[in-house]
Amino acid sequence: MTLPVFGAAEITEAASPELIFRAVREALIAHAEGRTSVPPPMVLEFPAQQGDCHVKAGHVDGSPHFAVKIASTFASVNNGLMLVVDATTGVPAGVLADEGLLTAWRTAAAGALITHAMSPTGIDEVAVLGTGEQARLQVEWLRKLRPLNRVRVWGRRPEAADNLCRALQARGIDARPDALDAGAPIVITTTAARSPLPVEAFRTALQVTGVGTDMPGKHELPEQLFAGALVATDDHAQCLDHGDFGNAVRAGVVAADTDIAVGTVLRDGRPAYDGLSIADLTGIGAVDAAVGSAVLRALTKS
Amino acid sequence: MTLPVFGAAEITEAASPELIFRAVREALIAHAEGRTSVPPPMVLEFPAQQGDCHVKAGHVDGSPHFAVKIASTFASVNNGLMLVVDATTGVPAGVLADEGLLTAWRTAAAGALITHAMSPTGIDEVAVLGTGEQARLQVEWLRKLRPLNRVRVWGRRPEAADNLCRALQARGIDARPDALDAGAPIVITTTAARSPLPVEAFRTALQVTGVGTDMPGKHELPEQLFAGALVATDDHAQCLDHGDFGNAVRAGVVAADTDIAVGTVLRDGRPAYDGLSIADLTGIGAVDAAVGSAVLRALTKS
Repeated sequence: MTLPVFGAAEITEAASPELIFRAVREALIAHAEGRTSVPPPMVLEFPAQQGDCHVKAGHVDGSPHFAVKIASTFASVNNGLMLVVDATTGVPAGVLADEGLLTAWRTAAAGALITHAMSPTGIDEVAVLGTGEQARLQVEWLRKLRPLNRVRVWGRRPEAADNLCRALQARGIDARPDALDAGAPIVITTTAARSPLPVEAFRTALQVTGVGTDMPGKHELPEQLFAGALVATDDHAQCLDHGDFGNAVRAGVVAADTDIAVGTVLRDGRPAYDGLSIADLTGIGAVDAAVGSAVLRALTKS
Repeated sequence: MTLPVFGAAEITEAASPELIFRAVREALIAHAEGRTSVPPPMVLEFPAQQGDCHVKAGHVDGSPHFAVKIASTFASVNNGLMLVVDATTGVPAGVLADEGLLTAWRTAAAGALITHAMSPTGIDEVAVLGTGEQARLQVEWLRKLRPLNRVRVWGRRPEAADNLCRALQARGIDARPDALDAGAPIVITTTAARSPLPVEAFRTALQVTGVGTDMPGKHELPEQLFAGALVATDDHAQCLDHGDFGNAVRAGVVAADTDIAVGTVLRDGRPAYDGLSIADLTGIGAVDAAVGSAVLRALTKS
C-alpha cells in the first residue's frame, strides 16, 4: 500500500469554496452540539528562526476520517500539511501537502460564515485590521456570502495596507487604506498582535470578528469591547485559554460563562440582540478534520 | 517540490538498531538536560472501533528537524507515521510511513537502554509481562545490549504466552511461560493494563521497567513497588500525569519529587543503590523526533 500525497495544485482544484464552506459549517455545528473529539492543540516554538508550529487534531463523530494537521509559520512564511487517517482502522489514508492553504481557507470560511451570520442584513462595509494573506481572504470569502461595497484596510505599516488595497482592487473590490478615522460596521481582525489593537478602530462596529488569537500570548481585541457584547466562540475552552474572550474574562470584563457557540449561531441564526456582537475564533481541529476528509474524498472520488 | 514518502520496507533497511539506539540515547540525555521542546501529547479515542490515536511532537535543540508523529492502535493493530519537518524553515521534509515500526523500535530501544543501565551487571534472566509485539521487542533489543540466558513470559492468556515463547525460541532465546511462580531479577511490563499487574510477578525483581502507560487510565505496576525504590522517569511531568510513577504518587506511596531522569542514568550510570530500581517510560516526542530525523537523513543520505 502506498500512501497518496496530494500537492497544493491538486488540492486547489479539488477544494472549491462550496466544499470548504459546507465542511466548515457542518463541523462548527457538530462541535457546538458536542459531536466532535478535539484534543488541546500543541505548539512548538523556534524563537531563533522566528518560527512556530501548531499541531491540531480532531474528528467529527461519524466522519470516515480523522486528521492531524501541522501549520508552521517561519519568518512570516506559512507552511504545513494535513494527515488524513481512516477513522475505522487507524490506517493513514492520505497526506494533503497543502503548504498551509487549507488552514488559510478554513479560517477564511469560518470567519466569513460567522461574520455573515452575526451581522445585520444589508451591511456592506467592512474594516479589516491586518494586511497579510488572512486579511485578504477574510474579505474575499465574506464577499462570497454577501455583497461588499466598501472595504477599509488598516495595518501598522501603511505600505502593507496600500499593497493589500491594490490586491483587493484588482479583484474588483473598492478597498482603501483606513487611518482609523473612518471605521465600518463590520470589523475583522487578522493580526498576530500580542497587545490590543487601537480601540478607535472599533468605534463604529456592530460586529467584530477576530481570527488572530491562535495561541497563548496573542491579543487583538481591547477587553472593554466585550462589556455587554454578544460573544460567540468557536470553542469555549480554547477561547478561554488563548482567545480574546479569555483575555476579557481574565481582565474581569465578562464572566466565563457568557459566550454562545459559533456553531449554534450558524445553525439557529443570530439571537435577537441590539448591541455589539463579537466572534472569537481560535481554530479547531475538528474543522480541519472535516475539511481534510472532504478534500481527500474529492481528490480520490471516494 | 514533492514531499518524499518512505514506506516500511525502506525504513526497515535504513533504520539499523545502532542508529535507533544512538538517536534514542542522545535524545533522552538531551531531554534530561533540558535541551528539548516537547508539547504535551494528544490522544483521540474511538471506543466503537476499540481504537485510539496518540499524537506526539518534539524537537531536540540544534537538530535539523522536528517531528510530529501519529501512532494508532485499532482492535490491537498498530499503525502510524511520522512527519519530519525542517526546523529552520518549517517546510515538511519527508513522511515516514512506517506503519508504527519506529514507535515500536524507539520504545524497545529506550526500554532496553534503561533496563541495561539500571540492572546490576551479569544479570541474564528476564521476566516479561505481556505477550504483544512490544514484549518480544523488549527482549530482542535488550539482548543486543547484554546476554540473556533465561526469559520468562507471563500473559493473561496462556496461549499468547506460548506463542511469544515460540517466537523467541525461534530467535535462539531460551524462553518459557511463567505462571508467576518463577520470576526474574529483571521484570519488564509491556501491557495495556488499566489496573495493576499481580504483585507476585515482581517478587524477585531488582529492576522493573514499565513501557505500557502511554495515556491516562493505564496502570501496570503495583503502587507499593515504588515505596523506597530508585525511580527513573523519561519525562517527569508526563510520568506524573499518566505514568505508573504518577499512579504511585497519587496513592501516597512516594513524593512527586523523588524521581531521577532516565537520561541522567544513561549519561552518568546508575547511582549507587541497593534496593529495587524502577524505570517508568511514557514515550516522549523529542525521542520520536530524533529517530525520525536520523532515519530521514539515512534515507536521503543528507
